[in-house]
Amino acid sequence: MTTPASQGTNLDPWFGAYAARTAGLSASEVRALFAVASRPEVVSLAGGMPYVSALPTELLQSAVDRAVREQGPVALQYGSGQGSPALREQILDVMSLEGIRASVDDVVVTTGSQHALELMAKLFLDPGDVVIAEGPSYVTAVTVFKSFQAEVVHVPMDDEGLQPQALQETIDRLKASGRRIKFIYTIPSFHNPMGVTLPWQRRVEILEIARRAEILVVEDNPYGLLYFDQAPPQAMRSVEEDGVVYLGTFSKTFAPGLRVGWAVAPHAIREKLVLANEAAVLSPSSFSQTVISEYLATADWRGQIDTFRGVYRERRDAMLDALGRHLPSLDWTVPSGGFYVWLRLPEHLDSKAMLPRAVKELVAYTPGTAFYADGGGRSAIRLSFCYPTPDFIREGIRRLANVINGELELLGEFAQTGSLPAQTEQTRQNLLPPSIG
Amino acid sequence: MTTPASQGTNLDPWFGAYAARTAGLSASEVRALFAVASRPEVVSLAGGMPYVSALPTELLQSAVDRAVREQGPVALQYGSGQGSPALREQILDVMSLEGIRASVDDVVVTTGSQHALELMAKLFLDPGDVVIAEGPSYVTAVTVFKSFQAEVVHVPMDDEGLQPQALQETIDRLKASGRRIKFIYTIPSFHNPMGVTLPWQRRVEILEIARRAEILVVEDNPYGLLYFDQAPPQAMRSVEEDGVVYLGTFSKTFAPGLRVGWAVAPHAIREKLVLANEAAVLSPSSFSQTVISEYLATADWRGQIDTFRGVYRERRDAMLDALGRHLPSLDWTVPSGGFYVWLRLPEHLDSKAMLPRAVKELVAYTPGTAFYADGGGRSAIRLSFCYPTPDFIREGIRRLANVINGELELLGEFAQTGSLPAQTEQTRQNLLPPSIG
Repeated sequence: MTTPASQGTNLDPWFGAYAARTAGLSASEVRALFAVASRPEVVSLAGGMPYVSALPTELLQSAVDRAVREQGPVALQYGSGQGSPALREQILDVMSLEGIRASVDDVVVTTGSQHALELMAKLFLDPGDVVIAEGPSYVTAVTVFKSFQAEVVHVPMDDEGLQPQALQETIDRLKASGRRIKFIYTIPSFHNPMGVTLPWQRRVEILEIARRAEILVVEDNPYGLLYFDQAPPQAMRSVEEDGVVYLGTFSKTFAPGLRVGWAVAPHAIREKLVLANEAAVLSPSSFSQTVISEYLATADWRGQIDTFRGVYRERRDAMLDALGRHLPSLDWTVPSGGFYVWLRLPEHLDSKAMLPRAVKELVAYTPGTAFYADGGGRSAIRLSFCYPTPDFIREGIRRLANVINGELELLGEFAQTGSLPAQTEQTRQNLLPPSIG
Repeated sequence: MTTPASQGTNLDPWFGAYAARTAGLSASEVRALFAVASRPEVVSLAGGMPYVSALPTELLQSAVDRAVREQGPVALQYGSGQGSPALREQILDVMSLEGIRASVDDVVVTTGSQHALELMAKLFLDPGDVVIAEGPSYVTAVTVFKSFQAEVVHVPMDDEGLQPQALQETIDRLKASGRRIKFIYTIPSFHNPMGVTLPWQRRVEILEIARRAEILVVEDNPYGLLYFDQAPPQAMRSVEEDGVVYLGTFSKTFAPGLRVGWAVAPHAIREKLVLANEAAVLSPSSFSQTVISEYLATADWRGQIDTFRGVYRERRDAMLDALGRHLPSLDWTVPSGGFYVWLRLPEHLDSKAMLPRAVKELVAYTPGTAFYADGGGRSAIRLSFCYPTPDFIREGIRRLANVINGELELLGEFAQTGSLPAQTEQTRQNLLPPSIG
């Protein structure tokens, strides 16, 4: 290893000093899209921001007041690395809505459930290990796994989620080639980005496959309580304690700005999660935990979740209605909860290459490629209905239909040459916002 | 690699699945001491908890009210992975008090400065790399570096902090043996745990040594503004931009419960810190950042820091006075700011072995061994004067003196046998709280 300054050709004097794992570190497409989405004239169907304005200020104000007045010294101080016992007790109540029975000792509070993912990756992933994930999967989970030099191997989904047989085949193939599979990462309810939900029978089958193969399941469940008509099947953790690490969050049922999520893990893993949590942040925010604990203790939080359901149901309906109206020839998923619709484009359309044109037409989305570690997803896009109002959603889909139809026309014109002319490619590059690679 | 269940002798079915780096994961002594310190009859001189009750509730209440009423939708939402631009601007004002000039682009807000340490470790440390740190050094920094499989090599300190010549010799020795030194981790002002402060001339020398050796300096400065008489020398970052990553925090000048700290880093490192921050937590808490930003914008935060200085100065005085009265034959550091005194015991006393007896006498401290990666510090202890009132500090030192004098008498009695009788060792083990190993 040479010293940094000897890497003379690089502008970063510390170029030679970074850890090997930083090779996998790059800006996510979703991150870049925050910049696009923030321009007011753009209808963003890209981000996954909850509609926090549906949380009445009085409810928040009241919880915050009590946190400051009655719990001030606790809220301001360092706390336990495992999280506040009072909040962990309340988390048990929240999880009981999805059939989970656990002890307060099994819960670890984290800085959003994102940090639980990071801690799980730090605890389990050596370079070259494999994480099996749905294809497509949650962007920043894939980023985290890659940041610890693991390989993410996708298993195909259909409109009922992860396919058990494909999972079994993937495990067999990987094991036969000597790979170390550390866990199966899944979002069974109202999947990000596909919007689909794993039926109960598949949950049982997948747990059985994982048990036989002795592979841990990481069940990520940010959206389970945000169903529109009837509740999804109970959590996988409800029937499997030893083989599942369950991740929950208040980001969607309360607010993401407080950064409070949690993990429920088998005893030995839980102990290690606490130690890793302490090393990373000493303790999760006492202030945020106290505010949420006061909110859960005194506000009608179940009623507030009903309110959120109503808001998102209306937006889902607006999106499905507009898709049917403006893009009747295409195919999309029909979510019964959560934040997302997965739209499949005609195969020869490239959703990433189309994005600059969409932004020019003042609509943003997330290209399907963002959700794959292996270059998949080119002809799909994720549409978020969580944040924009129904009117904006309808307008956004109308603009998107114009873009897609325009691309199809363009492709038709140049169909005989087999590729787009150089001039058009150049124009695309010019339209690309600088932060979108 | 065998599958987990084949590790039949272990009670943890996932024993075989953890990453290699978890081998270095163990409960810190300071963590264990939280449990001891929480018993009301024990005077704890062990923890590093700021005295948050010195922050008037009105100041907090007012900042929180404005955050909710005027910034609600921002405070509740996801934010930038780099942190709020408004808060980063205000952080520049805070740092200007210690001579630091930086751009708002250079700052990355983190979940306490602890998380900046974790992110730096993740970005720089490969297994086998070396971090040079003062001996003794901050416990949880050592834990973080070890958690990424780096070796921490200590450089001796004296009452003026890190010794430049010893640093140079350590670097030379490590380089000669082919080791990769990734950074020099230092707490130049009111060191944790030694309480000493590096004079300006040594800061310049150390920067020069680091520059010549092309090694990054991580300057951790949680206590710099908490001086008792006159300000410490300016931050090392004030004269070296390209070779220093500076860490700051609001945990000591406002409150740790909000978990807001920051890093200032050279451009290329800063970009990587933001990506690593996003992977780990998506964004630091908008809620905490908004509360602190409102506090800084409208409260007399400089006056509040003066209040904290007065509180800690009185406690420091109480501790030094009690040490002079009850343990006149021993030697200790005299801090001019911060939270800690470093007490040197007679060489043949073992501070860790003595702890159970101290706890029986209702006083707790942190044994010096907690602050070394290499088993050093046996005959020293860290005494914290930040949290207990002056009267409790005096009583705590009185109890501690009884314990030390009792140990010295015991050693005197058994001096001829050369070791303590088995019975006494057994008694010690029984007194050990279960969480203290």
